[in-house]
Amino acid sequence: MEKNYRKMWESSFAKRTERLTGSVIRELLKITQCPDVISFAGGMPAPEFFPKREVEEACRHLIPTKGEVMLQYGATEGITELKEFLSRKMRKYGVPADPENILLTCGSQQALDLIGKVFINEGDRILISEPTYLGALQAWKLYGPEFITCKMDDDGVIIEDVEKSLKKGPVKFMYMLPNFHNPAGVTISLDRRKRLVELAEEYNTFIVEDDPYGELRYEGEHITPLIVLEKERVIYMSTFSKTLAPGFRLGWIVAPEFTLGKIIQAKQGADLHTGTFVQYIANDICQRGALKAHVEKLCYIYKERRDVMLQSLEEYFPKEAKWIHPKGGLFLWVTLPEDVDCTALFEMAKDNKVAFVPGFAFYPYEGGKNAMRLNFSNTTPDKIKEGIKRLGEMLKEKL
Amino acid sequence: MEKNYRKMWESSFAKRTERLTGSVIRELLKITQCPDVISFAGGMPAPEFFPKREVEEACRHLIPTKGEVMLQYGATEGITELKEFLSRKMRKYGVPADPENILLTCGSQQALDLIGKVFINEGDRILISEPTYLGALQAWKLYGPEFITCKMDDDGVIIEDVEKSLKKGPVKFMYMLPNFHNPAGVTISLDRRKRLVELAEEYNTFIVEDDPYGELRYEGEHITPLIVLEKERVIYMSTFSKTLAPGFRLGWIVAPEFTLGKIIQAKQGADLHTGTFVQYIANDICQRGALKAHVEKLCYIYKERRDVMLQSLEEYFPKEAKWIHPKGGLFLWVTLPEDVDCTALFEMAKDNKVAFVPGFAFYPYEGGKNAMRLNFSNTTPDKIKEGIKRLGEMLKEKL
Repeated sequence: MEKNYRKMWESSFAKRTERLTGSVIRELLKITQCPDVISFAGGMPAPEFFPKREVEEACRHLIPTKGEVMLQYGATEGITELKEFLSRKMRKYGVPADPENILLTCGSQQALDLIGKVFINEGDRILISEPTYLGALQAWKLYGPEFITCKMDDDGVIIEDVEKSLKKGPVKFMYMLPNFHNPAGVTISLDRRKRLVELAEEYNTFIVEDDPYGELRYEGEHITPLIVLEKERVIYMSTFSKTLAPGFRLGWIVAPEFTLGKIIQAKQGADLHTGTFVQYIANDICQRGALKAHVEKLCYIYKERRDVMLQSLEEYFPKEAKWIHPKGGLFLWVTLPEDVDCTALFEMAKDNKVAFVPGFAFYPYEGGKNAMRLNFSNTTPDKIKEGIKRLGEMLKEKL
Repeated sequence: MEKNYRKMWESSFAKRTERLTGSVIRELLKITQCPDVISFAGGMPAPEFFPKREVEEACRHLIPTKGEVMLQYGATEGITELKEFLSRKMRKYGVPADPENILLTCGSQQALDLIGKVFINEGDRILISEPTYLGALQAWKLYGPEFITCKMDDDGVIIEDVEKSLKKGPVKFMYMLPNFHNPAGVTISLDRRKRLVELAEEYNTFIVEDDPYGELRYEGEHITPLIVLEKERVIYMSTFSKTLAPGFRLGWIVAPEFTLGKIIQAKQGADLHTGTFVQYIANDICQRGALKAHVEKLCYIYKERRDVMLQSLEEYFPKEAKWIHPKGGLFLWVTLPEDVDCTALFEMAKDNKVAFVPGFAFYPYEGGKNAMRLNFSNTTPDKIKEGIKRLGEMLKEKL
């Protein structure tokens, strides 16, 4: 591009784009997409278990009968049938969501962006755990908040840390991933969940509860979601990306009706509505009970993969490495001695044809240098073993 | 909701949400969705002609063979095959778009929102025609620009008006709908297109060229798009919503690679990527040549509907009414004597079971009081005749 044109475009970008950065993960993924690389880097479901037959069946009988509504424009809120299904489904877990409290979104990434749009003023303080989901950081950074970070342990975010931060000054909201945290893998205990909603009340703020993996629990008992403990102060969000198929781009938000109204207005301007075609397909699969059966199958498969990864870590990783035992979800978080630089390690791993995400990607400012996120859902057991072995040998050499 | 909670949420909304308004059309549509209302209000394709068979066929052979990639996460830019198809297709019209210049979006509404996000600072001056597409107003208002409006005649936006506005001060960009303008129905002549790109050069600004209806031409010759006249100063956007199916939510942006890079980053944070599932289906239909055949069919059908509407206006509308003769697209714009209030008329029309969009909806500040937008694609010829007759009788009584 000629210099003058480039100058014109550069000077045309809005000020907020200075805060715009590409996702580190997406750049990494490009590197790791070679078929001979064993990648623990993404957060993708196992494609070999996608419910292809169910999707095909849904298409076959829906298109001739409902094609005219599936292919047409739809309501911004989403299709009624699917909202009703989600309402019933969530009510089983005590989530007090009527169809009027639900908005279908283009994946839960869009839910994060809409929350940023509707709530974040420049300079607003947003309380997050550290590390945290990098998609949230990416979506929200654009709106210019200050991230207030709280540490985590095996029971999730540390309440004393949260309280200390709240005392320092008002926060716009707290962002929590209570189940099988991405990337940390930990789950917030019931006691802490109760304290979190109490703190929201005490400090007159609200909580964004991000729950993409809640159904993928491999052991232990379901723990009451934050929104069940306090529906008036929680915006809840989840997705079909991990349970059904990310290629549909189908997620949802639950919020008090008054609040959801604003989010719906923002969604109208953002893309009018979520695809009707994929909503009807997802709805059909849900209504026939096929999603439930599919999730059960996924739990069985992913549990095995998690177990193989845990065993392999035990077997091949140096004793200095620490990792958590996730009770569900897709991720394991490994911490190495403080002097280990996982970004340099990533480069070495590339040569050994194995990949992970360096921990720094999950920190808004700095941190995570000596940590790595490992995904176990997207790799077969034998490859998990082989990949962890390669990483372990590399680490032992290094330490 | 209890007063205290409501107060908490209200005080949590970001400042920009004060500029957030629901779409007038979406509210109107709710009223007009009763099956016995003849509605010229929406901008929807004729559902009875959706290519259901082609979509079903695509699903049937794609899901078993490509299900694993169709249902998985994809690249933010969109799938390569579809970008390649769009590149070839646009090159036929002289649009110099390589796959690297194309980003698939969630309908062209998302393209508008991303442009707002990437370019508009509060207070930026955006040059638009008056009336203009209300989805653009809705998407951009949130970012707080000042809209500089230019009048139109039968050859599109009036160049002297554009030049006068540019002389008054810098504009961030000019927003143009060159083909079969929504809502005005007019097409910008080639001479004026040439002048527009010259003015962009002279005043060192750029043009957003919104072209959802370009292929739906019922008479006359194709006119060179603005991006062909000056690729370095134009962001072009189009959609599959009018040619294939709006329920897929599939549109695209063409921009210089450097500029598109920023838009892609914004898209990552907004929703990661556009649905892979629907991209593969659309691609399959395109590659088999079925889209081209379908568009030819649509042109035949919509031309008939337009003609019936024009004839009916001639027959039933009072002589004081003026309307344009659109050479394509979906809309007709009717102007009534200055003292007629089309919003009041809309209420009367509702009682007569016929609907349209009052003109004011297409003005950023005020105007359009005595105008109405009529859609002809979504109603069968006999109903068009009946609806226009009802409106005409009402008008004659009123005038």
